[in-house]
Order: sequence, then C-alpha cells, then structure tokens
Amino acid sequence: MTPENAVNPYLYSARREKARALLAEKKLGALLVNLDANRYYLSGFELHDPQTNESCGCLLLMADGKDWLCTDARYEEAAKALWDEELILIYAGAASAPLRINRLLRGILRGELGFEAHSLSLAFYEDLSVGLRMKKADGLVESLRIIKDETEIALISASTALNHKLMEWIPGRLSIGKSEKQIAWEVEQFFRGLGAEELSFKTIAAIDANAALPHALPGESRVRENCCVLLDCGCRLRDYCSDQTRTFWVGGDPPDYFMRALEQVKEAQRLAIAAIRPGLPCKEVHAAAHDYFDRLGVAGHFNHGLGHGIGLQTHEAPSLNEKSETILRPGMIVSVEPGLYYPAWGGVRWEYLALVTEDGCRVL
Amino acid sequence: MTPENAVNPYLYSARREKARALLAEKKLGALLVNLDANRYYLSGFELHDPQTNESCGCLLLMADGKDWLCTDARYEEAAKALWDEELILIYAGAASAPLRINRLLRGILRGELGFEAHSLSLAFYEDLSVGLRMKKADGLVESLRIIKDETEIALISASTALNHKLMEWIPGRLSIGKSEKQIAWEVEQFFRGLGAEELSFKTIAAIDANAALPHALPGESRVRENCCVLLDCGCRLRDYCSDQTRTFWVGGDPPDYFMRALEQVKEAQRLAIAAIRPGLPCKEVHAAAHDYFDRLGVAGHFNHGLGHGIGLQTHEAPSLNEKSETILRPGMIVSVEPGLYYPAWGGVRWEYLALVTEDGCRVL
Repeated sequence: MTPENAVNPYLYSARREKARALLAEKKLGALLVNLDANRYYLSGFELHDPQTNESCGCLLLMADGKDWLCTDARYEEAAKALWDEELILIYAGAASAPLRINRLLRGILRGELGFEAHSLSLAFYEDLSVGLRMKKADGLVESLRIIKDETEIALISASTALNHKLMEWIPGRLSIGKSEKQIAWEVEQFFRGLGAEELSFKTIAAIDANAALPHALPGESRVRENCCVLLDCGCRLRDYCSDQTRTFWVGGDPPDYFMRALEQVKEAQRLAIAAIRPGLPCKEVHAAAHDYFDRLGVAGHFNHGLGHGIGLQTHEAPSLNEKSETILRPGMIVSVEPGLYYPAWGGVRWEYLALVTEDGCRVL
Repeated sequence: MTPENAVNPYLYSARREKARALLAEKKLGALLVNLDANRYYLSGFELHDPQTNESCGCLLLMADGKDWLCTDARYEEAAKALWDEELILIYAGAASAPLRINRLLRGILRGELGFEAHSLSLAFYEDLSVGLRMKKADGLVESLRIIKDETEIALISASTALNHKLMEWIPGRLSIGKSEKQIAWEVEQFFRGLGAEELSFKTIAAIDANAALPHALPGESRVRENCCVLLDCGCRLRDYCSDQTRTFWVGGDPPDYFMRALEQVKEAQRLAIAAIRPGLPCKEVHAAAHDYFDRLGVAGHFNHGLGHGIGLQTHEAPSLNEKSETILRPGMIVSVEPGLYYPAWGGVRWEYLALVTEDGCRVL
C-alpha cells in the first residue's frame, strides 16, 4: 500500500493485539510470521516477497508487546518508516536471517516460539530453532484474516467494483480476430487505468475448447463468429484482490447447448448463494451447486471446488469444496463460481463474491 | 512459455540428463525439485507458482530416468501436454501432495531422496519424508542454471534488447509533472507492447531523494525542472529476465554533484567490467568498483552488492558482493550495477548485464 492511500496504521497494531491474545491462548512466547500476506496483515510491511525463494523479511510478534521487524538492508528505510528503530533487526543476507533471528530470540524469548510450518523452509527452521523451544502455529494469523473487518470489506468491494466495470466494458471489445492474449492485455490495461496496482492473478481469457481447461493460459486462439469466450480475472486495488468470471457468446444467437449450460450454471450459483449463511459448513455450499448439477445429470462436467476465500491473497481460507468442514461466519468473503465444461466446445463458468452476513450473505 | 515460442522440448530432457549425472555423483536415487524456477528449467512446466503459499507442483527426477511430474487437477491438462501420462501424479489438494508423493516414492525410490531444503516447507518435508531416506541437495539444479547455454544467452540478450529500447525511449517521456507511478506504468506498457510477458521485477522510478533508497516504490513524487530520475527496470521476454538501470537529469544542465557521481559510477562500472574474466572470484569484481570508490573517498555512499546473476529469475546465483567466493566461469551472466547515494539529493546507479566469456566478458 502506498502512503497516499494507506489504511489507518492503528489497524495494524489493533490486529497485532488480536493475534497476541491468540499467543496467550496457545501459551506461546512469540510467533515468527513469515508468510508474506500474514506479515503484511499484521505490520503493513511489504505485501509481496520479490520471488519464490526471496523474502522481504518477517515479523516477530512477542507476548510482551515489543514486536520486531526483521529484514535486510534493502528494506531498512521502508522498515524505519513503519517501525520503532529499536525493534528493527537488519540482517546481511538471506543466509544470515535465521541465525540473526535466533540470536535475537535467545536473548528475549520467554517460552515457546510459534512458527508457520507451511511457509518456513526446512533450512530456515533448522538454523532458527537451535536452542529454542519451537511449536507449530500454522493458521493462527489466518484465523484472523478469514474474517474481514469493515475496512477490508470496503476495500474488497471497491476492488470488485472495478471488476464489474470491466465485465460491462469487455463484451464490446471482443471483436472478431482478437486473440486471447490481446484480450488479457486489454483487461490488464483497463484495471491499471482505473488505479489497480496489478492483476490479482493471471487473467484467463479462453476461447471455445480452451474454456474447458481450468488453468487456460491466454494464447493465440482468436475470437470468431459464434464462439464462446470465458473470462476469469481480477485486480488488486489498494492491496485487496477481486475475482470474477463471466462467459460470453460472440456472434449470432447462442446455440442451445451454450444457453442450457449458462442457465444451469447460473441456477447452481443462485442456489449456492441462497444457501450461504452463518453456521453452515462450507461443504454444504459446494453441495448446493453440485447436487443441483447431479439432479440434472451434469455433475460430471463440474470438476472443481465451488469457491475460495479472497482478501490479501486471491486464494485464501475458507475453501468451498466437498470436504471443507469450516463453518461459515459473518465477515467471510468467498467466491461462488460453478462451471460446466465440455471439451468438445468449451464451457461456462460464472463467478460472484459473497460476503457472509448475520443472516445470509450479500453479493459484492 | 507459450507454445508458439516454446524452446525445443529436447532442451528440457537434455537438462534433466545433466542433472541426472549430478544425482549419480551424489549417489541419490531421486531429487524432488520444488523451487518453481528449477522445476521449470528441467521440465518446461509452469515457471511461476501462483502465490507464495501455493505451488503448481514438483518434478521428481529419478536416477532410473523415469521422471515424474506431480501436480493438482487444475494443471492436469498442462501436464499432459508436456509429459508421459503414465508418469504424472495428480493429487487432490496442497495438503495431500507430500503424502501422495511419499506413497509413490515408497514404491519406486531406490536409495536416498535429495530435496531442496531452502524451498521445501517444514510441513511438506515432514509428510514427505516418512519412511524415506532424505538428503539435502540444495543448489544442485542451480549449479546447472548458473551457466547459461546458447539458447538462454540468446533469450536474455533479446530480453535485454527491449530494455535498451526502453532506455532510449524513456528520456523523452520524463515530462514535468509526471509522477513516479505514471513513469513506472509507461515502462510496463512499453515492455508489454513489445511482447514481454511481464516485468521481471517491480520498476523502480525514483525522483530526487527517492533515488537514494535501494527499494524505492514508485509514488506520487513528480518530475520537475532540474531533478534526478533513477530508473531500474526489466522485463521477462520468452521467460527470461532483463535488468537495467539508468539515472537521468531532467531540466537544465546537470549540477556538478550529479555529474561527478555519474562519472564516478560509470568509471566504477567500467573497471568492474574490465575485471570480469573466468577464474576470478566474484568478490573481486565487487572490489574493483568498491576500491575505486574507496580511493575517491566515496565508498560509504555505495551500500549494496555490485550485482547478481540473472536468468529465469531476476535474482539468482552468482552474487557479486564483498563475500562471494564463487569463481566466474564462461556462460555466467551477471548484473554490474554500482551506485552512489546521497540522501540530500538522491543518487546515481548505472547497470549493465555482462556475459562471462572465455577470455573476459561481453556486455549484453
């Protein structure tokens, strides 16, 4: 987040106090927050690590309230702009990070160090853990992130509003001869032109049979008369992700098979959204769509989970799939994106984001 | 890499044979290749993981030559387009990945399993390793990637050629009133318009004092008469990264302090490039620039390493810094980017990429 649109800095410290209450519950002396989105959520420091094997640093959430920001010299100024200088640890390079953090913790840690076993590498863990009492604490920060506060709901709504604008604008851009790649690039320019920082994920612009691929990369397939175009895209606006899917027919009247799939998908989505309410296990929302497809005899063409949580990451908890036991609670935001796929001609997917409310849900 | 510009698929199998020879040297029965760039280098499968805590899958390089591609259902079609179906493992979700790979390996592994301890999470390691003999094998794939083959040299040169075009074009775009953010977005559009897939890293467009920050994010500072603009940017073209920095003066004649820093930085760069040759430790290249600054009494204003390797990742081995003992070899490509920074007014950085040749180096 850039300074001119920064959220209230007290938001971050308020979140840390909530996380600290969880530390106390789990009897941890500290938590090493290593996952980039978790680190950012609690500190405002660097939402993205630069590449898969390169970290900007980590947050040490301490039971005593004196939280440390640990990073390398490149980020020293960025850290100082956010953090008490006396609580910043600057290490020399990636290899020294766990050793320096270990040395710091040996002086100040009382009790066990919680850590994120799903995002800490084995090598980092080994150097970090020498002489410390370690305890897995995966999901602790995510248990806060899963419930969006008012600020986050407003930000995700604003990000989603750009997606709605895009989806109104794009049909007029699907001219004959335009490639998937060109469409994807126009989508990106549109979002950026409206102030989005980046895409929230690589745009899927899939024509005809490509629409049947769950992970279609935009290529050289081109719009032609009477074709199906599936567009699944989103942007990041003021840090928060959006995600929408529509499927268009270009050219003359859509054929019956397309209209049938479209109507079935929309009805499945309607039923799933109608089901969403606090207290329901996530798998029941998936089932609402799946069972409808099953009654129609088309469930075999719906081969993915119904949706996922979204926020600082495009994919976060909770998942709406056939196994998810997570119970819906007010403040969760999930995608609802049923689809029916037919390799012979393509497929249809339709996606909205839904905010769980006190008595149901609200589509964003 | 998209199909129409895909490199020869035999390139990937040739690379796997080279990696397999290293397996034999290290007496490993298999290597789990988990880091996204390493996986892609050896298989052509998915260069980028979608987000920090979400993987597209991994490659199992087997001593017996029957290599497995392991991924989830989203990527099944992409895997089948590349791989023998009988050697594809599709797991249900992230949590099941290490368990399914463990089960597969219990049936086929003879000897020890090498793994990348710096990119495998502790949680993944724990589920993966049950009943297997594990051995760290960090850097094995990187030891191949550090030497660029002819195809890679051509691709990095082509990516760099776009950077040179950008640097010729951009001075005319630095009009009074334009913000760093606007400049960064113009840079991105320029690269994309010339066919680049994406930026290789977030553009640094830093005006005046911001130029002194090693990690300046483009903000609302604007070009004015008599200002310094540092631009550090690169693109990814056909998978390969480029990276160049220039520092411009906008408005009237540059002041003496700017010209002095510019000349000193360029001379340091010239000396460093002149030093590059096979057999030299990387730290000596850094020293060539640093010692020159030191003789001038300005070394305190040069506060970062001189450069880094580049290829499928923007930052890869070898590093050119004061500690790096890595010996230069023909085929390495490194950035050479000395800088002098003065918080009062900004700073100057100038960057080229250099390919180590048989008898010296060639600037790309």
